[in-house]
Amino acid sequence: MDYINYSYEQLKTFCTDAFVAFGFTVEEALKITDVLLLSDLYGIESHGMQRLVRYHKGIEKGLIKVDAKPETVFETPVSAVIEGHDGMGQLISIHAMNMAIEKAKKSGMAIVSVRNSNHFGIAGYYAKMACDAGLVGFAMTNSEAIMVPTFSRLAMLGSNPIAISMPAEPYPFFFDASTTVVTRGKLEVYNKLSKPLPEGWALDENGNGSSDAERVLKNIVGKKGGGIMPLGGSTEKLGSHKGYGYGMLCEIFCSIFSGGLTSNHTHIGGKGGTCHGFMAIDPAVFGDAAGLKEHLSTFLQELRDAPKAEGQTRIYTHGEKEILAYADRMKNGIDVNINTVAEMKNLCDYLHLDSIKYLGDVDFSSSKQSSYK
Amino acid sequence: MDYINYSYEQLKTFCTDAFVAFGFTVEEALKITDVLLLSDLYGIESHGMQRLVRYHKGIEKGLIKVDAKPETVFETPVSAVIEGHDGMGQLISIHAMNMAIEKAKKSGMAIVSVRNSNHFGIAGYYAKMACDAGLVGFAMTNSEAIMVPTFSRLAMLGSNPIAISMPAEPYPFFFDASTTVVTRGKLEVYNKLSKPLPEGWALDENGNGSSDAERVLKNIVGKKGGGIMPLGGSTEKLGSHKGYGYGMLCEIFCSIFSGGLTSNHTHIGGKGGTCHGFMAIDPAVFGDAAGLKEHLSTFLQELRDAPKAEGQTRIYTHGEKEILAYADRMKNGIDVNINTVAEMKNLCDYLHLDSIKYLGDVDFSSSKQSSYK
Repeated sequence: MDYINYSYEQLKTFCTDAFVAFGFTVEEALKITDVLLLSDLYGIESHGMQRLVRYHKGIEKGLIKVDAKPETVFETPVSAVIEGHDGMGQLISIHAMNMAIEKAKKSGMAIVSVRNSNHFGIAGYYAKMACDAGLVGFAMTNSEAIMVPTFSRLAMLGSNPIAISMPAEPYPFFFDASTTVVTRGKLEVYNKLSKPLPEGWALDENGNGSSDAERVLKNIVGKKGGGIMPLGGSTEKLGSHKGYGYGMLCEIFCSIFSGGLTSNHTHIGGKGGTCHGFMAIDPAVFGDAAGLKEHLSTFLQELRDAPKAEGQTRIYTHGEKEILAYADRMKNGIDVNINTVAEMKNLCDYLHLDSIKYLGDVDFSSSKQSSYK
Repeated sequence: MDYINYSYEQLKTFCTDAFVAFGFTVEEALKITDVLLLSDLYGIESHGMQRLVRYHKGIEKGLIKVDAKPETVFETPVSAVIEGHDGMGQLISIHAMNMAIEKAKKSGMAIVSVRNSNHFGIAGYYAKMACDAGLVGFAMTNSEAIMVPTFSRLAMLGSNPIAISMPAEPYPFFFDASTTVVTRGKLEVYNKLSKPLPEGWALDENGNGSSDAERVLKNIVGKKGGGIMPLGGSTEKLGSHKGYGYGMLCEIFCSIFSGGLTSNHTHIGGKGGTCHGFMAIDPAVFGDAAGLKEHLSTFLQELRDAPKAEGQTRIYTHGEKEILAYADRMKNGIDVNINTVAEMKNLCDYLHLDSIKYLGDVDFSSSKQSSYK
């Protein structure tokens, strides 16, 4: 697949101008852009520029309402429930995590749960917000149903990522992962390359293992059954019930606490309804926050220094790869695949923006049509 | 393997009298017994009577101090850090979770983190305590290092279970699982049966996959390297980094928040040092607690009613199997395997209790020596 290299600044300008053209304020557009580009900078290609087309379609179809403002419908010193009114997920989520951070700074810890939002980008962005404020941050979201519970043949939970971040030196602990064994994005990559899926990833419409990425993806879109296995696979032998359990944890913080839609009811009949959950904990409630940070830093270093498995040269702690990717991409630019650039050009055309100014004069002959429906 | 059936009351009498004989008060002995027997009633054989021998050895070696009392070393309205002074894990943990529950009832939510404790039984017991009080409960513990982080060949984290429980009808959501793909108990069962371990469970001393249960267990005991894989296996293909990440979440709530020993430093040089983490959340901080309970109950029912995979007849929600096992065992008694009964008899002899009175006149000819070192 061909890639085109853009600098962070180039993509930031394009993305901000695009969201302003959609009708967001400059301040709002900068916030959305910051979430999307952190994903590309962290090497999580699926949730950055590649995801723009979904926001484009979401706004076009009215699933995402540009002028919606998040509304606090219930609140205590340690909690809030936010009604998103189908607004842009990133804006609602930054607002919600900021509330959790403010409350945690005053009360020690707080949970803010959100309903009727939209796709919010990478969960890790919001966990990192708390971490940047010196707190322990948690961020989760449900999504269109894609996880098939153990012994079922129908997707009932979302990819339901859980992100956790806590200050440490020389870089924070930063964990951000779906509770499915892989994300839909991974299946899309295999589909584009016409490669068979590895065993233990996906299920067909009868609930049997499938290596056919195209079939699984078509079934997901058509809600015909099947989907992705929970972390731990499809049977209890490798712990399917555990991934399914973490998916439930995510659902509790997102859809249950907020009184919103569980994943199996979102994205049906022209309705979005995505729910999020955010938690912030001030480490000072356990005494010496600096001491806790040092304690975690020591453990992370011990993990990195632990003896390596035969054939391995490095043990990563969570967040290390992202820190390395960030440094590399800030210096060397961000490689965007040609299909995504084609989608960005379509977006420019739709918004009456000069694509050549933002993206350069690109030869799209090697690009394929987007797989987004 | 032969089993002997005892009623709940028989085992309760035996277990309570045994802990009284160790020097605990009747009230303390009843608490410890309640934790251990809930495990057997829930069908989690590894953590009930079978685990008695470890408490026996722990007290005998002085790792568990019978007269230690938990001390609160730091406290806020939403948190506490407890120094366990090497006391009995169950007593410290019931005390700690009660603190979390009391604080959550006043402040909305609370976390209590514990250091220098001992094995506390099943994590789920404490999550259930909060659930029984109408709250959302979380309980975690670290342990002797047994989880090999992704790309390592040395166990650095414990089995690090995370338990979560929330009220629902007709029975609560109750999730209790190690963050390793399986527990050490599973390896011990395979070892006793001389069965090869399934692929994706364990690693040898070089960090390569191993099906040799005896070798892996010997290496763990001798701290020679290897151990059990995180949930998700040993490579990123099936999500090893995710199980490792949940293991880290557990470590943060247990050893980091409490300033205690991380798993890789516990159980070394005659020191225990197990750490626990407890969290309670009052659902009323999100508005209508009864509404939340109903919302979760509906989703759980939808999951149970979802279409089954080919060849499957039932989808379980978390806690359902435990509820079924509980009803069965309360009615039909608890089957205790002959090796465990032999350990219980040894315990009677050690404590100068009349084993025939408690256990009956058992024929031990089919029992094997305990694998506990």
